[in-house]
Amino acid sequence: MKSLKGMSSISHNFAQNSSHMKKFDVNGLKQFCQQVFKKIGCPEADALLASDVLIAADLRGVDSHGVARLSGYLRLWEKGRLNPVPEIRIIRETSSTAVIDGDRGLGLVIAPKVMDIAIKKAAESGTCWISVKNSNHFGIAGYHAMKALEHQMIGIAMTNASPLVAPTFSRERMLGTNPIAVAIPAKTHPPFVADFSTTTAANGKLEILQRKGEQAPAGWIQTKEGRISLDPNELKSGGALLPLGSDREHGSHKGYCLGSIVDIFSAVLSGANYGPWAPPFVSFLPLPEDPVGEGLGHFLGAMRIDAFRPADEFLSHMDSWIERFRSALPAEGFEKVLIPGDPERLFEEERVKEGIPLLQTVIDDLQLTGKKLEVEFTVSPRA
Amino acid sequence: MKSLKGMSSISHNFAQNSSHMKKFDVNGLKQFCQQVFKKIGCPEADALLASDVLIAADLRGVDSHGVARLSGYLRLWEKGRLNPVPEIRIIRETSSTAVIDGDRGLGLVIAPKVMDIAIKKAAESGTCWISVKNSNHFGIAGYHAMKALEHQMIGIAMTNASPLVAPTFSRERMLGTNPIAVAIPAKTHPPFVADFSTTTAANGKLEILQRKGEQAPAGWIQTKEGRISLDPNELKSGGALLPLGSDREHGSHKGYCLGSIVDIFSAVLSGANYGPWAPPFVSFLPLPEDPVGEGLGHFLGAMRIDAFRPADEFLSHMDSWIERFRSALPAEGFEKVLIPGDPERLFEEERVKEGIPLLQTVIDDLQLTGKKLEVEFTVSPRA
Repeated sequence: MKSLKGMSSISHNFAQNSSHMKKFDVNGLKQFCQQVFKKIGCPEADALLASDVLIAADLRGVDSHGVARLSGYLRLWEKGRLNPVPEIRIIRETSSTAVIDGDRGLGLVIAPKVMDIAIKKAAESGTCWISVKNSNHFGIAGYHAMKALEHQMIGIAMTNASPLVAPTFSRERMLGTNPIAVAIPAKTHPPFVADFSTTTAANGKLEILQRKGEQAPAGWIQTKEGRISLDPNELKSGGALLPLGSDREHGSHKGYCLGSIVDIFSAVLSGANYGPWAPPFVSFLPLPEDPVGEGLGHFLGAMRIDAFRPADEFLSHMDSWIERFRSALPAEGFEKVLIPGDPERLFEEERVKEGIPLLQTVIDDLQLTGKKLEVEFTVSPRA
Repeated sequence: MKSLKGMSSISHNFAQNSSHMKKFDVNGLKQFCQQVFKKIGCPEADALLASDVLIAADLRGVDSHGVARLSGYLRLWEKGRLNPVPEIRIIRETSSTAVIDGDRGLGLVIAPKVMDIAIKKAAESGTCWISVKNSNHFGIAGYHAMKALEHQMIGIAMTNASPLVAPTFSRERMLGTNPIAVAIPAKTHPPFVADFSTTTAANGKLEILQRKGEQAPAGWIQTKEGRISLDPNELKSGGALLPLGSDREHGSHKGYCLGSIVDIFSAVLSGANYGPWAPPFVSFLPLPEDPVGEGLGHFLGAMRIDAFRPADEFLSHMDSWIERFRSALPAEGFEKVLIPGDPERLFEEERVKEGIPLLQTVIDDLQLTGKKLEVEFTVSPRA
């Protein structure tokens, strides 16, 4: 295990070093995405919503989940795995729960709409928990959880995903990176926003190392036999990502538990495909032949603050929580302690002003996507 | 990071090697604990309940949370920090939530009683989520979560705890080991029961190393300056446990997020003490002088399966989930993949038959406790 020192104190999981990259106008990129989603048949409002979720990822520094994924959704549509005009239906409900059939729509559209339903039902019953089936990749989990904030609610979002992760003691890819996001409002401070995969490192981090030609730290990935690997290309040879904790001695069974809980809440509760049956995001991989459910699953929740405690009292104590943790004594060699959500917010502040940095490969991909669908990619990099 | 190989495939966090230890009758130990709790003023039924929770920990192999802790609760009572006859009150509620004041009672008694309320309310509203203040150490989280199982519900239990954990980049102890337990029923298979601290290793593991005079692996603990340490006694010199993930490169910010979420749900939602203000379990440490709430906090939940999906359908798919994961290909050098809850269940099967192994130090401590309260420790080790 590497020394605790020597790590940047405000680095983020996914964002690459962008100092030499071309930066693009936020609204221009969003409009381009919207045009693309409209071209594949999405209604105007859905196209806007999907674009907003994608751009939010780029703004928040989660580059792997932003416009770089646009062509991936397009390819799912080309294969007939995506319904651009889904009829999103509640198929079962109680006062504090629902199950929703996403009708093979874009997860980018289904998840925020489901959050709206959860928020509305929580306003009545205190909390609401919705398990979703028949959906697709929903972008960054944090976007959906954060929708609760303006309603003085805590938002929770999780999803299962393409199987890439081997449980503790296994060589087989059984789980996705299965992220969890929890957004909690404060009074005068920015909200607490945790948004993390339940693996030691998510795929986006490996992609950055691949581009740089660098090795991965021990504990991120294993070979297809289950041996330690430092090769960021290992997944292409049948290797697997490791659950948070890396190995048994460092608690990987806890990461395996977390990923499993996300899988069961998202897919077994709803009737989606779970575990290794989760449909792959990449269209070149076939769908499992013996599905155990429909599409991908999500689990979304909203809890009204004042269902527990007068909102103002809670928000003041969240301020006190944040202030106390922000002022915790730093370890030797570090500047300060961060609050969950700080790194993403700092990215957002910078990128709203300066634009979104894109790699040339992503720019090429967007141009190709535009050409295919006869939508001109007219966004120019900033000077 | 150590090789993935060479770790026992059915080792557990807390249980020590018990082959040379004296083994004690389960019922005898439970009756002894019950007598002790009655002597400090607990009503008969509460004394039985508290003893049941303690013994469940010993049975399930979580030795650090069983009868070894009995004298710790006694010392809290001696210091006046524990009310043996609490009036547990709902102080706020909606149809799917409640906040409960534990009136400084034993967490061992409060948590199962709160779970009963959560289960009752979930039967009406689909789910119920209860945040508890003014409580105390509640034993193993899994016990409380598992109470939901017989009602065909998913149970969830978490608690904040004495501050021993440094957030990523910090040298200061700000969080407890803040465990999360999730219990999910299956049809023909034993239930899925995840029960884990949100740190790389919990304190019980350090205690085992201390007894053996062995070093800890890198990534478990740090010195009071925030440097890597291998000394299992480091906490006594102001060092700290590390969040699940160990360091930033291996995802400790995710463990820090998890521990924080548990802290906020358990204590900020309820009005208990959060972060470094959480009251210490050990009675020789003073209570913080400027409390931000009352006592320790828990967050307990119950979700009715059929609020999401016909119960039988769900339970069959849980069987399929469990069978698929149990048959996942093992990594080289390992025998098989475990389902969360397997190691604890295997301990329980063995210990119900053979008795609970206790270290001589624990036996001495129980005898001393008995002497103090005039309850004879008559439990003899098995032949």
